[in-house]
Amino acid sequence: MFETQFTVDFGVKYPIIQGGMMWVSKKELVSAVSNAGALGILTALTFETPDTLANEIEETRKLTDKPFGVNLTFLPTLKPVDYDAYVDVVVQTGIKVVETAGRNPEKYMDKLKGAGVKVIHKCTSVRHAKKAQEIGCDYVSIDGFECAGHPGEDDVTSLILIPRASDELEIPVIASGGFGDGRGLVAALSLGAVAVNMGTRFMMTKEAPIHDKVKEVLMVAKETDTILIERSLRNTMRAWRNELTIKIAEMEKEGATLNELAPLLSGKRSFENIMKGKPEQALVACGEVVGLINDVPTVEEVVNNIISQAKSVVERNYSLIKD
Amino acid sequence: MFETQFTVDFGVKYPIIQGGMMWVSKKELVSAVSNAGALGILTALTFETPDTLANEIEETRKLTDKPFGVNLTFLPTLKPVDYDAYVDVVVQTGIKVVETAGRNPEKYMDKLKGAGVKVIHKCTSVRHAKKAQEIGCDYVSIDGFECAGHPGEDDVTSLILIPRASDELEIPVIASGGFGDGRGLVAALSLGAVAVNMGTRFMMTKEAPIHDKVKEVLMVAKETDTILIERSLRNTMRAWRNELTIKIAEMEKEGATLNELAPLLSGKRSFENIMKGKPEQALVACGEVVGLINDVPTVEEVVNNIISQAKSVVERNYSLIKD
Repeated sequence: MFETQFTVDFGVKYPIIQGGMMWVSKKELVSAVSNAGALGILTALTFETPDTLANEIEETRKLTDKPFGVNLTFLPTLKPVDYDAYVDVVVQTGIKVVETAGRNPEKYMDKLKGAGVKVIHKCTSVRHAKKAQEIGCDYVSIDGFECAGHPGEDDVTSLILIPRASDELEIPVIASGGFGDGRGLVAALSLGAVAVNMGTRFMMTKEAPIHDKVKEVLMVAKETDTILIERSLRNTMRAWRNELTIKIAEMEKEGATLNELAPLLSGKRSFENIMKGKPEQALVACGEVVGLINDVPTVEEVVNNIISQAKSVVERNYSLIKD
Repeated sequence: MFETQFTVDFGVKYPIIQGGMMWVSKKELVSAVSNAGALGILTALTFETPDTLANEIEETRKLTDKPFGVNLTFLPTLKPVDYDAYVDVVVQTGIKVVETAGRNPEKYMDKLKGAGVKVIHKCTSVRHAKKAQEIGCDYVSIDGFECAGHPGEDDVTSLILIPRASDELEIPVIASGGFGDGRGLVAALSLGAVAVNMGTRFMMTKEAPIHDKVKEVLMVAKETDTILIERSLRNTMRAWRNELTIKIAEMEKEGATLNELAPLLSGKRSFENIMKGKPEQALVACGEVVGLINDVPTVEEVVNNIISQAKSVVERNYSLIKD
């Protein structure tokens, strides 16, 4: 094993957390991650109602007896979301780890902390990380510019953000954005993090419940095959560069409004296109680390390879010190 | 010491190279870096003629008996530069390390290799790194998106570029862009590099021959205080975010032409404004790592701190492995 404050606090074998991914972080993937010795995270909003989340938690527990958590992403949505009810499910089902993202979880802290839930807040700047600490979060997971999904608007990379956050905060830092192998894990630990968060790498596993066509295109994608969209909306997202995202970026350049962009940004539309085997017409969140990922192994293989590579790297670094 | 292929090949104590910086990489800084056990690099084009470069090499040798190198940056310039004559100076003065940047050094390889000069080519993509290897370069120094100066147009960060380049190349890789302390050095080694290249950190030393006003403003600058300019010219540059660079970025957004931008991009104008104590009106190349730099120590202190921090990090990582 690899012992850090993260493995101790969460009772897992390895300092690796699987980041919450819409549509992907379901029982198959989450249980596989936890069974492999890392920390799996279900995404609450992937489940249409609080009841279906409660059901997924129960189903996940049938597949693993190891700890796993739930992601709660607070975003402005067209249809209002009953976040209180999702938080209640977390508390009532005895989940002990919540990853929050989007707006900070201040409103729900009392309820969560009262139930002994550890809160990991995901954010993209030192300023937001300090705010998370101030409102009582236990951890921050800090996302660099290279990450999949929403890197924020500052464009500061993980190499800078992780040590900056570690210097500024008392609470521990999880490194997120750009991590996919054992070299990255050791880099993250060296920069001051106590664990790495990985999304794209876990999406590229046999257990991830997404269409094979997506895994096939990402397997050959290079580090230059991602694109930033929605910057004009100040909701920047890093996605796979394809027909759809290139079109969105061009429309933004020409000054398209949210109303004009909205149909192309629909998650439902993306999901349907993937189901029809048309990944070129889907929004696929994917980080620059996709350039380092060229296979689709099992989750257990991913985790074991990372740990064994990390051990070799640590031992090799140690051997470089002379005198 | 810290032994890697870099320290062996270049006969230096530590795996640290000081990147060539226009106006900054002169004898005072370069000799201090080499004396501290790292590899100093003079920038050829900081000297108006090949003769003044030859003279600076001679002067630097009076200040250090340790190895140092010369940077040759091949860029389109208004006034044509007699690169052949600069290369001749390198060869004739017995310099054994050249850092090239901008266009690749293919045209000068025979002359340099014939004289036993090791060539380190600096580039910002895996594609260019492979080309450098193909034409016979000995090393590549790969610059991530977070770097000061010119990060290229791909926006791939060091965290991804370093392992990608290490995987693709036979020749060794130097990590550049985002490095300024011992944590970063260990991260770089973990990602597959044999050394780190640092610019901003060495600019922020007592020996760096730049105006104190610049050091003062950068000391308080945060990781969010850099800006990308010249993207519209496909010559993207990361610089300190100030009155001048904000104005340039706004003009680019409004479609300004090269002719309109040129007066503001003048290095001479920047230099004069700095001399007048007006850093707000100067182009100051500065990487995101500026957010991690809050002091102006001597070069020797910088190098010693990095190495001692790196040793602690390596030892701490080693202690995390249990069973």
